[in-house]
Amino acid sequence: MPTTLKEFEGVFPKLVADLKQHAEQYNLPTQALKWFEESLYYNAVGGKCNRGLSVIDTTQLLLGRDLTQDEYFHAAALGWMIELLQAFFLVSDDIMDSSKTRRGQPCWYLKPGVGMIAINDAFMLESSIFILLKKYFRSHPAYIDLVELFQEVAFQTELGQTCDLLTAPEDNVDLDNFSLEKYSFIVIYKTAYYSFYLPVALAMHYTGKASPENLKQAENILIPMGEYFQVQDDYLDNFADPETLGKIGTDIQDNKCSWLVNQALKKVTPEQRKVLEENYGQKNKECETRVKKLFDELELEKVYQEYEEARVAEIRQKIAAVDESSGMKQEVFAEFLRKIYKRSK
Amino acid sequence: MPTTLKEFEGVFPKLVADLKQHAEQYNLPTQALKWFEESLYYNAVGGKCNRGLSVIDTTQLLLGRDLTQDEYFHAAALGWMIELLQAFFLVSDDIMDSSKTRRGQPCWYLKPGVGMIAINDAFMLESSIFILLKKYFRSHPAYIDLVELFQEVAFQTELGQTCDLLTAPEDNVDLDNFSLEKYSFIVIYKTAYYSFYLPVALAMHYTGKASPENLKQAENILIPMGEYFQVQDDYLDNFADPETLGKIGTDIQDNKCSWLVNQALKKVTPEQRKVLEENYGQKNKECETRVKKLFDELELEKVYQEYEEARVAEIRQKIAAVDESSGMKQEVFAEFLRKIYKRSK
Repeated sequence: MPTTLKEFEGVFPKLVADLKQHAEQYNLPTQALKWFEESLYYNAVGGKCNRGLSVIDTTQLLLGRDLTQDEYFHAAALGWMIELLQAFFLVSDDIMDSSKTRRGQPCWYLKPGVGMIAINDAFMLESSIFILLKKYFRSHPAYIDLVELFQEVAFQTELGQTCDLLTAPEDNVDLDNFSLEKYSFIVIYKTAYYSFYLPVALAMHYTGKASPENLKQAENILIPMGEYFQVQDDYLDNFADPETLGKIGTDIQDNKCSWLVNQALKKVTPEQRKVLEENYGQKNKECETRVKKLFDELELEKVYQEYEEARVAEIRQKIAAVDESSGMKQEVFAEFLRKIYKRSK
Repeated sequence: MPTTLKEFEGVFPKLVADLKQHAEQYNLPTQALKWFEESLYYNAVGGKCNRGLSVIDTTQLLLGRDLTQDEYFHAAALGWMIELLQAFFLVSDDIMDSSKTRRGQPCWYLKPGVGMIAINDAFMLESSIFILLKKYFRSHPAYIDLVELFQEVAFQTELGQTCDLLTAPEDNVDLDNFSLEKYSFIVIYKTAYYSFYLPVALAMHYTGKASPENLKQAENILIPMGEYFQVQDDYLDNFADPETLGKIGTDIQDNKCSWLVNQALKKVTPEQRKVLEENYGQKNKECETRVKKLFDELELEKVYQEYEEARVAEIRQKIAAVDESSGMKQEVFAEFLRKIYKRSK
């Protein structure tokens, strides 16, 4: 049975208590301790926690049985570390992107009294990962691998973010700067590693199944899957019913280096390119409508559907080729794919 | 012979090449690679590098001999990791404090085209530490200790920063929020751990002399020394000749929770307190002059000199009590103290 968000969220208060205790050993003044606690709850809790939950589900699949209470707690702790890593990135991304809301609430940095202190709070969210790793995994045979994995994935995500920020500054539209190669780099590094590879790699290390071959195989399946996931995201931003999606897409107005604009750039006539040049990335409803019309003219919905079918067929083939005698399970990947294939939100 | 800044700086290009190579394996687009390199040079180089240099000098003292070329490189690499840690903090502190210049140049975030991307650049400076540690120390017996030490000291510094930001927001003067206890916490965590304890602890781990007892003893000497160093800094900010100091103190106007204001709060009459309430933390030359006059009336220069003598005597006593049979050297601490005792800049 897959775990539930409720059960997973039930673990977090214990981890917060651990982090507070760690800070208390230094006699941190009460005001600062409360601040840290509030930042932890505000920033790490309240999302769907798909990444965190999938550490638990993957652990269960790899062990081929239900988890003991202790195993559940440890897998959930690893899951929460991904959520903390994500919180670290979201708090700072929101500042860098001048975002207004996150998960239906004001962004942390916009809360009264927070402001740029949020930068330091982001650091503490990241540090929390390593405090918890040390507390619960110091004697695990894969301890150093877990530490290095978090460090490497954090660095990869930062590389993706650098490239994203340099490629699509909100205030400077330059379509020459876009390319499908850069797009791939950005989505793979900014999203796929921490969202798809990291949960599975953590569960593999935790269960002792992280041979270099198994890790490589997981990467070869999960990175393309993460790329497909982000392409979907970009597709839905423009083509999904906002009602179903739960939000109104803003990629066109935000000058995002999205999959759609890159596909458009591949197909445009010189006249159509001019339309893009003039209307993409403008904070203006009419310009957005003009771009949307162009995306329809270019039949990007069809291009996406062909992409999806081809990509998913490729991924399925790779999953079917996984040799289970090494302790890896096809079901781990199949489950990830099931969750995202043809999603509408 | 102590090492020189020039020799130390000569090592940095090799480390930058390593970091670039690490990023290149991921096929990072050229634009982003160049950006990363520029951030490394702009933010890590150009200071006095006292922290980095002292890793090398301490290593030499602990081994009791000159270093081989290889040992010099490794000690310098550890030293540069402290400089990277400091760069990570300075880039972000400058944003949080709305600073204008750093080391005589515009702050990184104020450079054209940088802005809030600097937050992500700060993250990459921190990540660089762990990439280099892995590259050069993965097979060192103290590898995991080195990794944990950097993580713990980063967290300690973040705690100090949290407390500092909450205690002395620039835009809200509330002297009730100040206390010598908070002051101590802030300077110990925000400065002493990474500036005094970290260089010595790194050299101890590197030379295999980091027994828990030796580390504890080093901490017991270096943390009070770091506290004394920061008290000196606060003293010099107000009492030093700006010509000699190389900058004009701004602690009073910036509403800093400095050692001087905390000493003043201990001694003030109700009338004098009113003067402080009305003039401290105001961006206004007349208010500043009024506070400076009050500091003179309260004879804070004398209070400082008494503090300095008492503190230094205590530290000297602790140094004299260091048992060298454990491989520790009194000279390590004596050298640190010599560098700061009665400094005028």
